[in-house]
Amino acid sequence: MTQQGMPHRSAHHADALLRPLAVFDGVDDALIAAFAQAARYRILAKGQMLYLQDDPAESFYVLLRGWVKCFRETFDGKEAITDIVPAGQMLGDDAASRGHYSTSAQAVEETELLVLPLALLSDAMRTDHQLVLNLLEQHLLHQNRQRREIEHLSLQNASQRIGCFLLRLCHDRQDSRVTLHLPYDKTLIAARLGMQPETFSRALATLKKQTGIAMDGPVATITDVDALARYSCSECTASFPCED
Amino acid sequence: MTQQGMPHRSAHHADALLRPLAVFDGVDDALIAAFAQAARYRILAKGQMLYLQDDPAESFYVLLRGWVKCFRETFDGKEAITDIVPAGQMLGDDAASRGHYSTSAQAVEETELLVLPLALLSDAMRTDHQLVLNLLEQHLLHQNRQRREIEHLSLQNASQRIGCFLLRLCHDRQDSRVTLHLPYDKTLIAARLGMQPETFSRALATLKKQTGIAMDGPVATITDVDALARYSCSECTASFPCED
Repeated sequence: MTQQGMPHRSAHHADALLRPLAVFDGVDDALIAAFAQAARYRILAKGQMLYLQDDPAESFYVLLRGWVKCFRETFDGKEAITDIVPAGQMLGDDAASRGHYSTSAQAVEETELLVLPLALLSDAMRTDHQLVLNLLEQHLLHQNRQRREIEHLSLQNASQRIGCFLLRLCHDRQDSRVTLHLPYDKTLIAARLGMQPETFSRALATLKKQTGIAMDGPVATITDVDALARYSCSECTASFPCED
Repeated sequence: MTQQGMPHRSAHHADALLRPLAVFDGVDDALIAAFAQAARYRILAKGQMLYLQDDPAESFYVLLRGWVKCFRETFDGKEAITDIVPAGQMLGDDAASRGHYSTSAQAVEETELLVLPLALLSDAMRTDHQLVLNLLEQHLLHQNRQRREIEHLSLQNASQRIGCFLLRLCHDRQDSRVTLHLPYDKTLIAARLGMQPETFSRALATLKKQTGIAMDGPVATITDVDALARYSCSECTASFPCED
C-alpha cells in the first residue's frame, strides 16, 4: 500500500462504498456511477496531512477507515480542532462553493480514503436536485452537532463534557455496565473537547469519583450508564441517548 | 400596532422586503410573489415568545426590526442561547425538514416580523433548485459562524471574547477610534458569550485595563481599534476585520 492509492480496487467496489452514504440517498444510479468511476483510493500514514487551510481545493473525500482531524491555527500557532471525522463521512465537500478548504485536515492514525474530484460535485450540484437536498440535510445535522457543542462549552463543566464524550460511545444502551475502547488518545480527546491536558486530567479524576467510571489505558469501564447520564446530561438541553 | 399584525401593509411591500434576502437571490419572481402574497406582519412586545422548542412548526419568519433570542433549556431550566438573530435574517426555516422548531425564540425588544407559511417553503424546496442552493449557502455561512464560536469558547479567554464581540460591531474600520452603542443589554451579551454575569464584569474590567476601551452605560468607546484587535484576535484563527 502506498500513498499513491490502490489502483487494483475497481470502480465497482467504489460504487458499493458510495451508494450507502446519506448524501447519495435517492440520487440517480448514473451519477453515483460517475463518482465511482472517478474515485481513487488513498492511504494516509498516521500524522500525514490531507490538505491545508486555505489551499485551493480540487478533491473531496470519503473516509473508509481511520480518523481525520480537522483544525485551524491561530496567529501564534495554537490549534483549534473543529472536528474529528470518523469513517463513513465526507470531508472537504464544503469547498465546492468556496474553492478552498476552510480547515486543515490530518490523519489521526493510518487512514484509508476515497478521493473524488470536486469539479464533479460542483457540476452535479448545479443540476441534481436530490443531491443538493441531501447536502442541505447533512449540513443541518452538522449544524445541530455544532450547536450542541456550543451549549456544552457554555454550560457544562469539564468533567461533564468528558462524561458526555464517553456516553456518545455507548452504542449498547441496553446494559447498565459498558466497557469501551477510546477511539483515539487522551491528548486528542482533551484538545477535541477544548481543554488543556492538565484540565482534562483533573476533570477525569473528578468524573471517576462522581460516577464510578474506571480508565485503564485506552479502556474505559462505565459501571452505571444511568449515573453517568444523570451527571453529564443535567447541564445539557438534550437527554441520553442523544438523537444524533 | 397590535400583536395580530398590520393588515394595511400590502403584498407589494412584502415583495420589496423579501427580494433583497440572500435566500431569494436569483429565484423566480413568481415564487417570491407567492411568498409575498402569503406574508403577514406581526409585532412582538419585548420579552414575548415567538415559538417554543419542539413545537410543531407552521411558519417561518423574516426579522424586519429588533432582535430575537434563540435558546434551548436544560433539564433544570438553565438557558443556552444559541443565537441572537438581527434584522434582515430568517428564523425557523430549518423546521421545513423537521416539522418542529429546534429552539425557542423570544423577542429581546419590540420586534417586527414577516410571518410566512412553512408549507410554502417546503413545497418550493421540492422543486426550486436555486432556492435550495441558496439555503445550502446560508447554512454553510451559519456553520462557519458556529465553528468560529466553538474556537473562541475553546481558545479565547473571557476578555478576548468580549473584545471580539465589540470588534464585530465596528462597521467603520477606517477610524482608529470608534464609539458604538451596544445592541442589547450586558446581561444578554454575557449569556450570548456563554459567561456568568460576574465573569463578564471581571473580564470587562480586564479588557478596559488591557486595551483602553471605555464603557458608559450602553455606549462603548474604543480608543484604538488595532490594539483591541491585537489583544482579541491573537487567540483566533481569523484576523480583524473578519470575513463574515
